[in-house]
Amino acid sequence: MKDEVYYGKGMRIVREKYPELYEGINKLNGVIYTGRELDYKTQKLIAIGIVASKCDENATEKQMRSGMAELGITEGEIVDILRVVLLTAGMPAFNKGIRILEDILKK
Amino acid sequence: MKDEVYYGKGMRIVREKYPELYEGINKLNGVIYTGRELDYKTQKLIAIGIVASKCDENATEKQMRSGMAELGITEGEIVDILRVVLLTAGMPAFNKGIRILEDILKK
Amino acid sequence: MKDEVYYGKGMRIVREKYPELYEGINKLNGVIYTGRELDYKTQKLIAIGIVASKCDENATEKQMRSGMAELGITEGEIVDILRVVLLTAGMPAFNKGIRILEDILKK
Amino acid sequence: MKDEVYYGKGMRIVREKYPELYEGINKLNGVIYTGRELDYKTQKLIAIGIVASKCDENATEKQMRSGMAELGITEGEIVDILRVVLLTAGMPAFNKGIRILEDILKK
Amino acid sequence: MKDEVYYGKGMRIVREKYPELYEGINKLNGVIYTGRELDYKTQKLIAIGIVASKCDENATEKQMRSGMAELGITEGEIVDILRVVLLTAGMPAFNKGIRILEDILKK
Amino acid sequence: MKDEVYYGKGMRIVREKYPELYEGINKLNGVIYTGRELDYKTQKLIAIGIVASKCDENATEKQMRSGMAELGITEGEIVDILRVVLLTAGMPAFNKGIRILEDILKK
Repeated sequence: MKDEVYYGKGMRIVREKYPELYEGINKLNGVIYTGRELDYKTQKLIAIGIVASKCDENATEKQMRSGMAELGITEGEIVDILRVVLLTAGMPAFNKGIRILEDILKK
Repeated sequence: MKDEVYYGKGMRIVREKYPELYEGINKLNGVIYTGRELDYKTQKLIAIGIVASKCDENATEKQMRSGMAELGITEGEIVDILRVVLLTAGMPAFNKGIRILEDILKK
Repeated sequence: MKDEVYYGKGMRIVREKYPELYEGINKLNGVIYTGRELDYKTQKLIAIGIVASKCDENATEKQMRSGMAELGITEGEIVDILRVVLLTAGMPAFNKGIRILEDILKK
Repeated sequence: MKDEVYYGKGMRIVREKYPELYEGINKLNGVIYTGRELDYKTQKLIAIGIVASKCDENATEKQMRSGMAELGITEGEIVDILRVVLLTAGMPAFNKGIRILEDILKK
Repeated sequence: MKDEVYYGKGMRIVREKYPELYEGINKLNGVIYTGRELDYKTQKLIAIGIVASKCDENATEKQMRSGMAELGITEGEIVDILRVVLLTAGMPAFNKGIRILEDILKK
Repeated sequence: MKDEVYYGKGMRIVREKYPELYEGINKLNGVIYTGRELDYKTQKLIAIGIVASKCDENATEKQMRSGMAELGITEGEIVDILRVVLLTAGMPAFNKGIRILEDILKK
């Protein structure tokens, strides 16, 4: 399941037409979310923080959604991530994260 | 103690000469690391991930050091953070993080 | 009024459900746009330059709009900001800023 | 023709209302894609890699489209660029690039 | 004089060995700091804000130094710029800017 | 040989203490620089462009050095890369790249 986490819409084309690249990404993915000391959920919280601190709206939404659906990450936990985003990346990144969270909760 | 975490060398000048700004930063800081659902250590792990995914060497070192000294964050936990950095921010950010970690461990 | 400048759509949820975080942001905001030597308009010009030099389209539009509506910042002044963006952040950031400005002027 | 490459929708306003700025950009542009040792196509491949490694969706799409239309850059070549983006900038930038490429190919 | 502002150590090699590139940069530079509505000092304040919001230590120091030496920009004005950096780019960028400012003042 | 390209000083610790992570990076690396349509040198030129457009001084120096030593990339070719960096990422990134190049050439 973890293997699917980072795979967006475009990954089908990669799997079908560039299978060796797809395989390499799979191999990499297999050594990311298998931390020795941090569990998968904690690593996912970190991933959400990193993409939210950048300005990639799609990636932030995808990470939040998969974290909430797969791992039961709550609204409050995401707000706690965004507190750290506010301090380390500033108000625009925080605002964007809150807006994405709100959109997810509405649907 | 948490109040001191983000305060670098330059903050003395801020406290002495721009006390109202210092106070505002303190107030902000007070609502960051007091998450309702995530504990301080988890928020710190997220902060390390965010600064490591950017290219601010000083901030990454400072965050790693304070996390290890104050909260007992281990080498293995930081490597688990850097796994996520590798996936979400690429090899140069991962390399830099590993190098900073190694320098900290040597001293 | 300044307190409202950075508050996007999502801030209502923050104010209602996370009032202590909202308060901390307010406190921070209160020590930002109260520069001792630069007036509010000059600080706003700087804020527009910073968000335009990054790739946050929403924040750039919001900053430009509020600067034009609240402080009478003109098209020509924003173009002068974008000249600096061109030099310090490159052509894609400049292009995006010009396009956002044009969209604002059309409406 | 090269002069037109970086000119987005907003450049008409620049040309008409800020002709001296337009002229300066033209002058700059004229010394970029006239490398002494790398040909135009190779420089364009580099430009695609740089904008794809950032999070500017519009610029990435524009660069890919103009590279494919003007210089005959192929789908496979862009995937080879995106391999480098994956290594140097991480999975979210790669995902976004693949998605943009797919959208271009569909149309 | 403005022409020299952005020229670092490496520009001598550009001027001597790549004169057409040097000329293009000069032409560009000539249309940046000649804003129609904002004066040179205001544009310089914006440039300092933009480079300080990124993590380029050298560029930030160079911009601060040239702004203070050429245009009489004061410590207090730079702190007012950094207030905006804090809000729009977060604490690590603010910390770095304060530290650079302090180092300049010491010398 | 390509496998070693991205491996900085810190990779020894990864190989010895986190062999499964090292293996995953190797697997990923194996599908990056084996483009189907672009040769290794062209992909390396793109990698240099991407890291130079960011602010990671170490990665830029490492990429330039390995590209010059392994693949015979010339000073002139790197300047042609930096022309594209200037257009797409601005003057500070260009300046930094030129300075790093100059330092490499001196030694």
